[in-house]
Amino acid sequence: MVSVTVTPRFGDTDALGHINNVVLAAWFELARTDIFKVFDPELKLDKRTFPLIMAHTDYDFVDQIFFRPAVEVKVWVSRIGTKSMTLYHEAWQEGRLCSTGSAVIVHYDFNTGETTPIPEDKKALLAQHLLPEPQPAR
Amino acid sequence: MVSVTVTPRFGDTDALGHINNVVLAAWFELARTDIFKVFDPELKLDKRTFPLIMAHTDYDFVDQIFFRPAVEVKVWVSRIGTKSMTLYHEAWQEGRLCSTGSAVIVHYDFNTGETTPIPEDKKALLAQHLLPEPQPAR
Amino acid sequence: MVSVTVTPRFGDTDALGHINNVVLAAWFELARTDIFKVFDPELKLDKRTFPLIMAHTDYDFVDQIFFRPAVEVKVWVSRIGTKSMTLYHEAWQEGRLCSTGSAVIVHYDFNTGETTPIPEDKKALLAQHLLPEPQPAR
Amino acid sequence: MVSVTVTPRFGDTDALGHINNVVLAAWFELARTDIFKVFDPELKLDKRTFPLIMAHTDYDFVDQIFFRPAVEVKVWVSRIGTKSMTLYHEAWQEGRLCSTGSAVIVHYDFNTGETTPIPEDKKALLAQHLLPEPQPAR
Repeated sequence: MVSVTVTPRFGDTDALGHINNVVLAAWFELARTDIFKVFDPELKLDKRTFPLIMAHTDYDFVDQIFFRPAVEVKVWVSRIGTKSMTLYHEAWQEGRLCSTGSAVIVHYDFNTGETTPIPEDKKALLAQHLLPEPQPAR
Repeated sequence: MVSVTVTPRFGDTDALGHINNVVLAAWFELARTDIFKVFDPELKLDKRTFPLIMAHTDYDFVDQIFFRPAVEVKVWVSRIGTKSMTLYHEAWQEGRLCSTGSAVIVHYDFNTGETTPIPEDKKALLAQHLLPEPQPAR
Repeated sequence: MVSVTVTPRFGDTDALGHINNVVLAAWFELARTDIFKVFDPELKLDKRTFPLIMAHTDYDFVDQIFFRPAVEVKVWVSRIGTKSMTLYHEAWQEGRLCSTGSAVIVHYDFNTGETTPIPEDKKALLAQHLLPEPQPAR
Repeated sequence: MVSVTVTPRFGDTDALGHINNVVLAAWFELARTDIFKVFDPELKLDKRTFPLIMAHTDYDFVDQIFFRPAVEVKVWVSRIGTKSMTLYHEAWQEGRLCSTGSAVIVHYDFNTGETTPIPEDKKALLAQHLLPEPQPAR
């Protein structure tokens, strides 16, 4: 699991007085940075070498997020596929789970426009952040 | 169907040279404004009277979006429920379908914190934007 | 003069119910795109060839901007220097001047990290957008 | 002086590979939160009681900011006037001063639309964050 703490900004609120839902997209992205580092250790973000492209994201808004108290965003790897992976995110504010969401990211070569297999050594690094399997009830 | 045209901003690009995926969240939200108008005709966005809260959004990134050419974002109502509705969005750039996505929005009273039924007259207005059913092949 | 029309987004409001001041930075940037085109006609935004870097921006907030009515953002070239230029922006909503601001942009070579002279042919193109001099009263 | 640390997001970069200039507006705003607290201790951001409105901001871009290393944003009160104040901001990344800027904020009553005097007790709290006067050389 990887975790970042973000502090909501005044401009992240909307006229309803809470944090606007689109802000979660930026927060979940921020929390993914350490996962990106597995594939781009120096985070050069150079499209000739950066091997990931976003295929899908989703967000469930479980509870409202309010201005000011810090928000902890946690990320796990929930699936390691041949050419793609799925990340699972949670946003917590003051002990309340406020939002969950997934991102499906494809291993991709921007030079050729083709999907490519995730190398085995990267899979091993991703496996360190695997979401624990739900345990069967006894 | 409701449609808006947005022009990508320099700051909407990221280091990979294309439009960053989080931008779609803001664009889809912009495209929903006319649907919000069904529930808040003058768009006062006052939480004592605004009756909608976001429950879920998802985004599929079908093709890259690049800087400058205008993007058309279309929204349909894909489900009208008792206390919630689902919207379906598409983003098109120069004839290419680049992104699709859904938003599940709950009819909600911010004063009581309770979900509330969508009034019948609002349902009738929403029905004007219904996504056409797929037609069976002959 | 160059002009763009933007529609405020729900997420551009803040808890005070008006458009948050940081949004103006993104709108003014959007309005500058046609000026960038003078220097990068195909808007490739490739740092090996894009010759501009931002040195300064300022914003005066003259009147509040509210959700929904379209905002027209106008840009003029207010100064053409040897190695830099100044742009002047105005944001109007429903006939009210809501914000003004300037941007000082330097002609720059990202490969060498040096400022470079603005070519004469570019100066001629910029001159087409010059802010009119205030006229003396008769 | 008040200080916050922010971590640049992937989406804060632009196609030139550095942090886009509009992002500074959001970072400086975040850093002002503790100053807002002087006037709105619980940060309710309710326009019936929140007594501040932004009049002016400016930004000098001294050096480029890059993806990933943390950025420290510092804020001082540089002027305490009768009905307004000026804040001074600095953004530092890895020991480099990257951006400076000011914000002029007016003490304001959103109910009446009138400027109002800053109470003396608030002035005393602001004075704790005063920018030191430059000292004369001996």
